[in-house]
Amino acid sequence: MSVGSAGIVQTKYHTFAHPPDELELENGERLGPITLAYETYGELNADKSNTILICHALSGDAHVAGYHSPDERKPGWWDDCVGPGKAFDTDKYFVICSNVIGGCQGSTGPSSIDPKTGNPYGLSFPVVTVADMVNTQRHLLDHLGIDQLLTVVGGSMGGMQALQWTIAYPHQVRSAIPLATTARLSPQSIALNEVGRQAIYKDIHWNNGDYYDKESKPDAGLSLARMIGHITYLSDTSMQYKFGRRLQHAERYGYNFQTEFAVESYLKYHGDNFILRFDANSYLYITKTQDYFDLANGHGSLTERFEGVTAKFLVVSFVSDWLFPSYQSKEIVSALMANGVDVTYVDIDSPYGHDAFLLEVERLTDLMGDFLKNVCVTERVTVP
Amino acid sequence: MSVGSAGIVQTKYHTFAHPPDELELENGERLGPITLAYETYGELNADKSNTILICHALSGDAHVAGYHSPDERKPGWWDDCVGPGKAFDTDKYFVICSNVIGGCQGSTGPSSIDPKTGNPYGLSFPVVTVADMVNTQRHLLDHLGIDQLLTVVGGSMGGMQALQWTIAYPHQVRSAIPLATTARLSPQSIALNEVGRQAIYKDIHWNNGDYYDKESKPDAGLSLARMIGHITYLSDTSMQYKFGRRLQHAERYGYNFQTEFAVESYLKYHGDNFILRFDANSYLYITKTQDYFDLANGHGSLTERFEGVTAKFLVVSFVSDWLFPSYQSKEIVSALMANGVDVTYVDIDSPYGHDAFLLEVERLTDLMGDFLKNVCVTERVTVP
Repeated sequence: MSVGSAGIVQTKYHTFAHPPDELELENGERLGPITLAYETYGELNADKSNTILICHALSGDAHVAGYHSPDERKPGWWDDCVGPGKAFDTDKYFVICSNVIGGCQGSTGPSSIDPKTGNPYGLSFPVVTVADMVNTQRHLLDHLGIDQLLTVVGGSMGGMQALQWTIAYPHQVRSAIPLATTARLSPQSIALNEVGRQAIYKDIHWNNGDYYDKESKPDAGLSLARMIGHITYLSDTSMQYKFGRRLQHAERYGYNFQTEFAVESYLKYHGDNFILRFDANSYLYITKTQDYFDLANGHGSLTERFEGVTAKFLVVSFVSDWLFPSYQSKEIVSALMANGVDVTYVDIDSPYGHDAFLLEVERLTDLMGDFLKNVCVTERVTVP
Repeated sequence: MSVGSAGIVQTKYHTFAHPPDELELENGERLGPITLAYETYGELNADKSNTILICHALSGDAHVAGYHSPDERKPGWWDDCVGPGKAFDTDKYFVICSNVIGGCQGSTGPSSIDPKTGNPYGLSFPVVTVADMVNTQRHLLDHLGIDQLLTVVGGSMGGMQALQWTIAYPHQVRSAIPLATTARLSPQSIALNEVGRQAIYKDIHWNNGDYYDKESKPDAGLSLARMIGHITYLSDTSMQYKFGRRLQHAERYGYNFQTEFAVESYLKYHGDNFILRFDANSYLYITKTQDYFDLANGHGSLTERFEGVTAKFLVVSFVSDWLFPSYQSKEIVSALMANGVDVTYVDIDSPYGHDAFLLEVERLTDLMGDFLKNVCVTERVTVP
């Protein structure tokens, strides 16, 4: 089988929840209109049974694969797994990915114009939750005429959305693939998110979230938050392999405060680049969304929370992931098994830390490809 | 045996390396005069064989035990281990602790006045290394008339100094107790230090290190750096125990950006307090000191580096310490054993992360107390 690119793709937009029919959010507020930016790959089959919904993580977007134009430098963020002959084979499946609500890549978020004021929402944007993200995705699927997902898949915060889908809309999800995720954000992760937020709050250009028409934006704070994030996406081992104690441009210590070690240079590069494509307020909102994620909250135990879930599961964790360690996936697996749910669990012995869900392409392609084929067989879904 | 307080202690000062006899630093620069702030506890015995040098970590100081005045709220930073009847029994041993060069608690550092200019050094202060810290401590011991240490002990960066002592002055050290430390800072630790430094650099009040006479100091950056640090001193498990997902003041999510989770409140408290007692430039210098620490650098292997070391060792790591993980202590132990050094290694199964070296008082008291007694017996040192 030849493996290829998803080709040239275009971001599309769906707007719904027009006043007075605003969407009621989990926090009780109402929001509308709401636009979701999304992309699709492959073709919906005749009985509309081959849809795969991909949910992205903190800094992702709808552009999961292919190129927006022939001269785009890099393909979408999960191009390794989406395309002809890939894990999510676009010759067989109809793949959808939308930018989350609260984001800044085309979906409604704090940088969007509030129609009531004509100005960007800023901090007047409501704090949205994973349940709200999933609810808006369901609206998009309604719009596209899709009743049921063959699978919903995502890593990190994308995995939280996948879990939420199986609970909120059990009859609309045949299977789910939560990768490198958790059913409940740990205090360590909350702490790391909070430090990133504090970096933004403490940036004088943040201006309480009101900076969209200002000359200076909270770039310093946002890049700092991203640097912290990047440390948590790698592992001690992967940093040893990738950087060691190598100096970037010198043979000897400079005994000064210039960027000196290769690992410092890497962090600086990623911090500096992030501010070109991400909004500081969105960073605040989406990290807060994660902090609030606790599936069992208000529902007794996680086992009770998964009652009535009918999807088949492939749960994957990575042994060197210290942001969402394997034990957190095992908690999910235990709670699913206690409900008699059909679940396959793999703890991949990867050195890449949390980023492994993006880097362990070969192993994930095998695992997810086989899982999907089995789901198709048992669910009697015919794909080309 | 009754366990008591070291009582009222006073910080003393020793100044040396007066021009033209400045101290030559590892980076080749010359610095002088140099003042070290230090404290002593207990009495030096007749043959001057009962001295214990305690080396402090990043944010520590010379005030290791007891109180400066009857109304001081908290005792010194390792009061649990230093005092009559404690691990470092001041009825038996003569205990010394000095503030590191580059620090801000009485020893010469970037906030000290440069006699050449009459202004604080700021960034014109030379970047010092662990070897420089140890060299200055040796000058202090010379001043006190002490030729040999019964033991040198420290956790974290204090452990780096202990290791350096055994290599730089092998005949002056009878034993060493490096706790929760490493022979070489890992890229992950360098990355975490660099993010802390970036937080300070990006603070507009840092002003390239020139802020001592300004109205505003880089408090925001320094507190942020401290928040990052605190996360690394705890562990995922200890944060689950200590905070869980508990909200500090509310029953329900606030859906806003106030400090909300208990763990956020803890970080904020420690960040806010740190700026009252620490200098931002010292934070830059001392983290850089750590980054440069690599015992084997320029000396072949770590095993080669430990050639000629004669001290007895007690090496202690903590299984949940992810800042200086146990494997880093095991590297030290292996290299020592390859040199036939008498070394006891204990990997304590503690949930407290890196902070365990300050918190596992009972286990450390037993271990360090017994180790010291054995050292006294084999070295024929008589203590009261």
